[in-house]
This record gives sequence, structure tokens and C-alpha cells, in this order.
Amino acid sequence: MKKVIGFVGVGTMGKPMAFNLIKAGHQLVVYDINPKPLEELKQGGATVAKSGAEAASGAEIVITMLPKSEHVEAAILGGQGVIEGVKPGTVVIDMSTIDPSVSKRIAGILDSKGVKMLDAPVTGGETGAQAGTLTIIVGGNEDVYKQCLDIFNAMGKNVFYCGPNGNGEIVKLINNLFGGIHAMSTAEALALGVKAGVDFKVLYDVICAGTGATNFMKMYCAIKAFKGDFEPGFMAELMHKDLGLAVTLAKEKEVPLLIGALTYQMFTRLMAEGLGKKDFSITIKTFEDLLDIKMKL
Amino acid sequence: MKKVIGFVGVGTMGKPMAFNLIKAGHQLVVYDINPKPLEELKQGGATVAKSGAEAASGAEIVITMLPKSEHVEAAILGGQGVIEGVKPGTVVIDMSTIDPSVSKRIAGILDSKGVKMLDAPVTGGETGAQAGTLTIIVGGNEDVYKQCLDIFNAMGKNVFYCGPNGNGEIVKLINNLFGGIHAMSTAEALALGVKAGVDFKVLYDVICAGTGATNFMKMYCAIKAFKGDFEPGFMAELMHKDLGLAVTLAKEKEVPLLIGALTYQMFTRLMAEGLGKKDFSITIKTFEDLLDIKMKL
Amino acid sequence: MKKVIGFVGVGTMGKPMAFNLIKAGHQLVVYDINPKPLEELKQGGATVAKSGAEAASGAEIVITMLPKSEHVEAAILGGQGVIEGVKPGTVVIDMSTIDPSVSKRIAGILDSKGVKMLDAPVTGGETGAQAGTLTIIVGGNEDVYKQCLDIFNAMGKNVFYCGPNGNGEIVKLINNLFGGIHAMSTAEALALGVKAGVDFKVLYDVICAGTGATNFMKMYCAIKAFKGDFEPGFMAELMHKDLGLAVTLAKEKEVPLLIGALTYQMFTRLMAEGLGKKDFSITIKTFEDLLDIKMKL
Amino acid sequence: MKKVIGFVGVGTMGKPMAFNLIKAGHQLVVYDINPKPLEELKQGGATVAKSGAEAASGAEIVITMLPKSEHVEAAILGGQGVIEGVKPGTVVIDMSTIDPSVSKRIAGILDSKGVKMLDAPVTGGETGAQAGTLTIIVGGNEDVYKQCLDIFNAMGKNVFYCGPNGNGEIVKLINNLFGGIHAMSTAEALALGVKAGVDFKVLYDVICAGTGATNFMKMYCAIKAFKGDFEPGFMAELMHKDLGLAVTLAKEKEVPLLIGALTYQMFTRLMAEGLGKKDFSITIKTFEDLLDIKMKL
Repeated sequence: MKKVIGFVGVGTMGKPMAFNLIKAGHQLVVYDINPKPLEELKQGGATVAKSGAEAASGAEIVITMLPKSEHVEAAILGGQGVIEGVKPGTVVIDMSTIDPSVSKRIAGILDSKGVKMLDAPVTGGETGAQAGTLTIIVGGNEDVYKQCLDIFNAMGKNVFYCGPNGNGEIVKLINNLFGGIHAMSTAEALALGVKAGVDFKVLYDVICAGTGATNFMKMYCAIKAFKGDFEPGFMAELMHKDLGLAVTLAKEKEVPLLIGALTYQMFTRLMAEGLGKKDFSITIKTFEDLLDIKMKL
Repeated sequence: MKKVIGFVGVGTMGKPMAFNLIKAGHQLVVYDINPKPLEELKQGGATVAKSGAEAASGAEIVITMLPKSEHVEAAILGGQGVIEGVKPGTVVIDMSTIDPSVSKRIAGILDSKGVKMLDAPVTGGETGAQAGTLTIIVGGNEDVYKQCLDIFNAMGKNVFYCGPNGNGEIVKLINNLFGGIHAMSTAEALALGVKAGVDFKVLYDVICAGTGATNFMKMYCAIKAFKGDFEPGFMAELMHKDLGLAVTLAKEKEVPLLIGALTYQMFTRLMAEGLGKKDFSITIKTFEDLLDIKMKL
Repeated sequence: MKKVIGFVGVGTMGKPMAFNLIKAGHQLVVYDINPKPLEELKQGGATVAKSGAEAASGAEIVITMLPKSEHVEAAILGGQGVIEGVKPGTVVIDMSTIDPSVSKRIAGILDSKGVKMLDAPVTGGETGAQAGTLTIIVGGNEDVYKQCLDIFNAMGKNVFYCGPNGNGEIVKLINNLFGGIHAMSTAEALALGVKAGVDFKVLYDVICAGTGATNFMKMYCAIKAFKGDFEPGFMAELMHKDLGLAVTLAKEKEVPLLIGALTYQMFTRLMAEGLGKKDFSITIKTFEDLLDIKMKL
Repeated sequence: MKKVIGFVGVGTMGKPMAFNLIKAGHQLVVYDINPKPLEELKQGGATVAKSGAEAASGAEIVITMLPKSEHVEAAILGGQGVIEGVKPGTVVIDMSTIDPSVSKRIAGILDSKGVKMLDAPVTGGETGAQAGTLTIIVGGNEDVYKQCLDIFNAMGKNVFYCGPNGNGEIVKLINNLFGGIHAMSTAEALALGVKAGVDFKVLYDVICAGTGATNFMKMYCAIKAFKGDFEPGFMAELMHKDLGLAVTLAKEKEVPLLIGALTYQMFTRLMAEGLGKKDFSITIKTFEDLLDIKMKL
């Protein structure tokens, strides 16, 4: 059953996701403040709207894919936002990674208008968005989630249902919390081995074969940081944002997050050093530079 | 080519390793301060020696498997120790996890007597020792390492050569540094998710499928801590010891180890709380108790 | 020049502050959700109002003294709040310790009604409030600050002007950030000395005489924690709140706050352990208990 | 009662201390590996020895003042060291800041030769050494301490007796542990205030007047770091050494030292950044540079 889908936010992630939905046969109505990707999508068969409200007005499904909580809030609740166009019965799927409490609040407001919302943040980055192999982590009503499965399957490979509104965001933040911690701890631990005189390749092989192994080392750094590539990928400033959201969540839930908080502060320092636009594995390079060592495969 | 092997230290780990060497056809001469395992090994075909010196006196290979640096030092260099019995040309293989600088010092002393040493700490625990599936991480002269490969293969499955004396210990410490950090960070990060309202199984499944995955979660906790089993396995006090060695190594090499040092101090706190004899994944239980949550599969 | 002063929030701190204003000859109109202190103040000569709006309606000065940001927001901006009664030209002085950004926002809203606000948080605790020896840390328009100096002098001994709206709160948070860090670091550092075999009194004397001295040790703990008294004083949960505000401020300003963030997380742990109602120097006791030592003068 | 005093180690600290002893009427026999200060002391009336052994041979008191544990060990126990010249009944006073366990070990060895030792590290720096106003922190036998009081009073103003051998070193390390923590926490906390828009002088005045005050801010930084002076004073690399000793002591005593360990690792990072020869308040400057702010009085 092909659908009319409003899509707000067609940047690095949103654009290829929108193309995959077109490819799956859906009819897209797209909006972004940046005209460039709109033009590309138009040539790909999408209709271009002049606002979020317009994109939402004829849609069965509205998808938002934006950088931060405040952007999602503005795009959905703000002037000429989705809420001004959306009709009762429509499902809004926010696929951004944002503050779970903001996500829940927006869901509540939409719900009072007869509009259901799912939070459905993704992992897999630009590559996964293009290949349609994203992991999609969903919170919200389970029946609504099931109705949207074909939509999710057009964009991703693994789709997880995590419980009520906000839970998709929470699980995504926990995943990235692990990522941030691994980025910091891997840098210092491997640097220690190299500085102590072990060949990096040997160190890498043993750790990856053993109980200390992480996907961050084996799958992420192996093809990126350990090849000397620190271009994003996933920008340090986005990891910083997500760690900040995790730390805020821990504050709300009164969970002591010692290693997480230390990691967040160390990323704050990286920001101050001007490294926010690099891949979040830039932690590796900072230890290479600090200790005059190489950590390359 | 079957060999005469002196084996000093036949405890939880050493005993099954010695049995595997007997099974492989080698002739074992064993010594321990505890008579009980000696009796078992005697019935299994080993000869029992009255001291390390005696165990070493007729051996081509001498293996030591002991808890701490000071035990290895005493067993090899102390009164009636290996050094008093060992003949030039023999190879001493210390399979304990100890301070790399102590290991290097002992190797130097043995070398001056015409005796080569390898440091060859293992991972895989009691289960791996019994099954002969240990991972063995070797430092020392490469030719000597190659001569000993059949010995290693009788006890383990993956054998890694890591460079000169001490490097086996260094790589082992880095591996356990990752293990300790994961034990702490996994506890706090998953606790946050559960406290925020996510079902533990869902959280586990998503993290294990994603970029945040670790072997600690997927392979270690899944069959132990997440089943409510906190009996060792690998005792928290041994993890504490190894983290202490890693922090000391970082001090010597002037590597800033922020997350590692914080993790070490948190394990020191666990020791003070009397949890040293539990499995090192006891970190999970401390967060369950502190926050009144369950993290069980 | 005696004034009519509306006073909202007459709890542990606010009540004695209000009494000091009465003593200085001012005419007080007081409001609180708790009737008990209102009765006491009535007998002391104050008029009792039925709401914040009523307390503000005839006042030249309105003072608020409440626990948290949300209380101040409700008391000033909420239904029957100060804003509904206050007249243009009145000065609102919020003496609570709250989020600087909330403080600035409220000041902006009041300003648009022709009402000036000062943020004027205090240090010195209940004792200082009773004795009229509080330190008062003021942000806002400097002329307005000067007009209110006699009011401040009736309640405190040291009054500091810190710049525009919000700056009083910021400086207060920095002060408490030091306090929280000292509470944690003093506990662990002195515990180390005692555990290593030094008499506590000797340790105390030497540190207090030297470069490591802090007012926290010399003036605060000396008459409280080191006498075995852990009743507030200043509750751990309030310190936790203030540390949380400092960490949030650091997040907004992108300042890496490593020791501050670690301290905050350790206080979060104390909360989870149920120690929030104790004095914030309870850190001393947790180390006494953990290590089975005494730190008493 | 004027005495013959052997003095080994007459560098930045030792030289002015030796001059103060001469001024008090004692007869000095001095030794150092560096000939330059020996010449100066000779012109000041001291006798120059060719070794530690010779300096000790005719002395009633032998003082050592050296940078690190290994120097003290070599100077006292090594070839041509104090132990080779010293006579039973002599008192050896080591005024260096070293590992308490090394100090205790040396004291034990000297004791077996009929020589008593005191550990008597100092605070107050070069200025205090010159002015004879050092604080001297003494461990060892109390009667021996009393006999040496006139010697201590010639060099210092406050002399503290802290208990048996090693306790002087322990208390000194705790003092410097506070110093290191304050250097780190003061930098980040004040930087937050300034970055949030508070005038530095105001911030300084309020904190110094309040419960957050430290001698580090009021007495040390006020005349140094906050004037833009980061020349030692007390070098960051010496603070790093002392923090390392404190962390090692915590390891031996099984005291969890979370903030201390984090501070130590942050100083390790400063070392790696090449800042070891600066004053330990260089932490202030690193935050000024990182955040592009000024923290100057």
C-alpha cells in the first residue's frame, strides 16, 4: 500500500532516506529550509512544499529528520510547522536524535490533536541511509509502529520496537553513550599499549579476538580512524550533543553516570579545541599527537 | 617431540593446564605450596617435586602460573626457587598476569644464567583452561616462542606473539583494562536505560546489534551477570589487581589514563565494600541494588 | 526610609530573614504555602497575605526565597503569583539559588511590566539568616542594587554586586561548586592520611596551617562533620541541586568541567543511597564507614 | 648547643636552608653533585665534602634534601653514600618529599646501624627556604624529633610532629594532594564563572570571602597565576610526582581516590603537553587559552 509521505528535513541523512522511500513507490512531499536538496528530490519525483504545514497537509505519514531538539520543536510545533497542516489520523514519525522528554512532550501535544507520533531515531550514518540499511529504534504505540513497518523497512534493515513514546530516543542515547565512552577509552587504552612498545597491529588483533573487543574497534575504527581517516562519519559535535542528552537523562532519572559524565566533559574539551566537525573517533588522533605515536593498521 | 616440563603453581588455572599437557603426552614434574592438586596430578601421571628448584632441575621447559608479581618473583628467584634448579638452555614460561617491568627484570636475570624466558599470560578463565581453549599472549624472543608453539597449542586455541619480553604482559593488561572499563560503563549505561523505562531485553538486543556492542555484554554478561550469576569467573579482586598494573604502566609511560584511572578507583571502592571475591561483573549488581532495578535476560 | 516589603517563602531561611527586616523597621506582608511560619511572623508584627499577588500588591519591594527554579517560577509568574499583584516601579528581589537562565528569563518578563528584578542568592545558612550575617550575592541593574542596599544590610553582612541579571546566581553556583568539590576531595584525601596511619588531629592541624587549607575544613567541618554532626546545615540534596545547575551552566557555556562533573555524579550516588537529607559533609562519614576509620577532632 | 651538620643536596631548596643553619651558628659540611652551590657555601663558611659519606663522617646530624625517592636512596644507601660515613648515634634527617614506604625502608636500614632517621619534608618553597619560614612536617621517634627542634627552628617557622617514620612524608603528600586538586578545580570553576560573564575580580572577591575559599586562591594564585606569572614556584612536574606518590599510597592502603586520581591523570596530560617546568598553577593558563578568557586580578 503506497502512501503519501510528508518529509521535513532532507539533509545528509534525510535526503537519501527520502530517495529510498520514493524508490519503494511512495509519493513524497518534501520540505527543507535549504533549497538545494529539494531540487534534487523534485527531479527524483518528489513534490516540493513551501512549509512543514504544507508538506503535512495531504500526508498519511509525516517524517521529520533534523539535527536537534529545538529544530524538531520548531518544525512540528512552530509557525507554519507540521501541526498547522496535519490532519487527525496522520502518523508523525520523528527520526531525529533528540531529548526524550522533548519527544514525549511533542507526542502528547500531537496526541491531543488526534495525531499519533513515533520517535524513531536511527544508527548507521550516511552510508546506511544511502544503502537503506539503517538500524531504526522505535518508541510509541505498538499498533502504530506495526502499521509503519513497511515504511521503516524501506529505509532500514533492523527495526526495533522499544516501548512507549520516548523509548526510541532513550535507547538511541544509550547506544551513543557506549559509542562515546568507547571512543575515549579505546584511545587511551591503545595508546598505552603502543607507548609501552607493542606493535599496533598486534595489539589490535589480540584485543579484537578477546573479551575486550568492541564493535567500535573492529567495525568502525578499523576502516576509518585506524586508516588515518577522521572525516565524518559521525561528527564529534553530534556525539557531544548526544552525550549531553544522556547526561541530562541521567540527571532526570537520578542515575550516577561517572564514566559517562567524564566522557561528556572530555568531548566538551574537544569542542573547545575546535575538533567538533571531525569524526568522533578523533579521540584516537588526539592521543597520537599528544604522545607522538601512531595507531594505524 | 614430547618434553619434560616443570610446572610450578597448579591452582584453579594451573591444574587443568598441567592436565592438558599430560594429555598431549608431555612428562610433568609439578610443584605447589598446596598439596591437594599435587595429589590429583600425581594420580594423573605427573611426578611431584618438593620445590620449584626440584621441578626445574630435570626440565626442558618450566612453566609458572601464579596470582601476583611477588609470587612469581619468589617462585623463580627466591630460596629453593626455579633459578636454583634450572639448567642453561631451559626455557621458563611464566603464564601469570604480572607487572611487565617485573617480568622483564626476571627475564634479564634468567638470561644472564643462559635461561630464556617467555611471558605468556592467558585469557579464557577456568573454563578455557579446562577445555584447552585459552588465548595465550606471548612476549620474548621469537625463535624461543616458535619452539614452544606445540606446548602452547596443548593449552590454548589462539596464540599471539607480541614482541620482546614483557609485551605479552602489556597486551594482557590492555585487554583487561578494556574489560574493567566495560564492566563499569556497561553497568551505568544500561542502568540508565532501565531506570528511564526501557525493557532490559530490548535494550540488550539493540545495543548488541549496534555500534555500541562489546564482547563483554554479548559473550560474558549474557551467560553470567545477566542471568544473576556473580560467582567468578574472574574475580573482581583480580581485575582490580590488573587495572592497578595498567595504571602503574601508564604512570611509567606517562600516558594520561583518565577513564582507566577512574575505573580503577571505582574497583578499589568495590574492594572496600567487600565484593572482591565476586565476579568482576558485580558492577551490574551494585547498580541494580543502588537503583532498585533489574538487569536480567 | 522604611518600606513595605512583600515576602514570599518564609521557610528555614526566609523566616529569620523576614524577622530581621521587621527588626530593621520595615513593614512586612508575608506569604507561604505553609501556614505555620506565617502565624509566627504575624505575632512578630507582619501582615499575612493569602497569595503572592496579594503580598506584592502594596509593596515597594518584593522578596522571594524558595528552594528551586520551578518554585520561583510558579511564585512569581504562576497563577496568583507576584506578577499578578506587583505594580510598575516595584523591585522584586529573588534570593533563592536557582538556574541563572531561569532567573534572567523571569527578570526579562518583569522588566516588560516595568518591574525591575535583582537576583540575590545568599550564603551563610540558617545560622547566618538568623544572625543577619548572610553573604548576599547580587545581579541586576546597579542603580537598583544601590537602592536596595539598606534592605540587604538588614539581612546580611557582606553584600557583593556581580553585574547584570543572573550574575548573582552564577557566582553563587561557582561558590557552591567549590563547596561540593571540597566536600568530596576532603573526604578522600583525609581518609587516605588516616588510613595510612596519621592521627586525624595532626593531619587536620598541618593541612589547615598550609597551602592545602580550605574554609570548608577550617570553618565548616571543624564545628560540624569533624564533631560527628551530619545534620544540616546545608542539605546534600541542595548541594546536589546546585552542582546540577553548575554542570548545566557549564554545558551552556561549553566549559569542560571534569572535576565538577565527577563530583556531581558522586553526589547523585549519595542521593541514590538515601543520604540527601543529611548535611553535604556526609561525604566524610561515607569514607569513615567504607574504610572503618574515624575522622573526628 | 651548636652542632656539626652534614648536608647532602644543596640545590634550590637545600642551599638557603644550609645558609640558615650557618647563620644559626652550626658548622656545616656540605655535599652535592653540582659544584656551584658548594663554592658559594664554602665562601659562606661551610666545609665542602667529596661525598655523602665524607659529609656524614664527622657529623652529629646529617640532612638530605633531594628531588626524588631514588636520589635519596642513592645518597644515603648507595656507594660513597651517607651510610658509609655515618656513626652510630648520629641522626639523619631527610627533608625531601619522597615515597613514604621508601622513607620507612631507609629508616629501618639506618636503625639497624644504630642511626636514627627523621623524615621531615617541608612546604613553603624557595621563598620560605630563604626566609627561614618553612613549614616542616616530621615523622620518626618523638624524642629524636625533640632533640632536633633547634635545627628545625633555624630553617622553619611551623614544625609539626606527625608520628612514626614515614608519617611526615604521608602528611606532606596529603597536603600536596589538596594542592593539586585545588589547582585543577579552581581553574575549571573560575573559568566557568568568567565564561558565563562574571568579572574575574568580582568572582575572586566573592569566593575568597566565602565558604569556597582556599589558601591556593587567596595566598598562592593571588600573587602569581592571577598576575600572569606561571614561572615556578613549585613546578608542575614536582606536583605530578607528589600526586603520583599519593595515588600509589592510596593503592597500598586500598583507599578509593576518585578526584585525586583524576587530578593526577590531568597533570600527566599537562606533562605530555610539555608544561612540566611551569608552576603547577599553569592549570589556570590552560583554561584561559582553551576558552579564550582572562583570569587576572
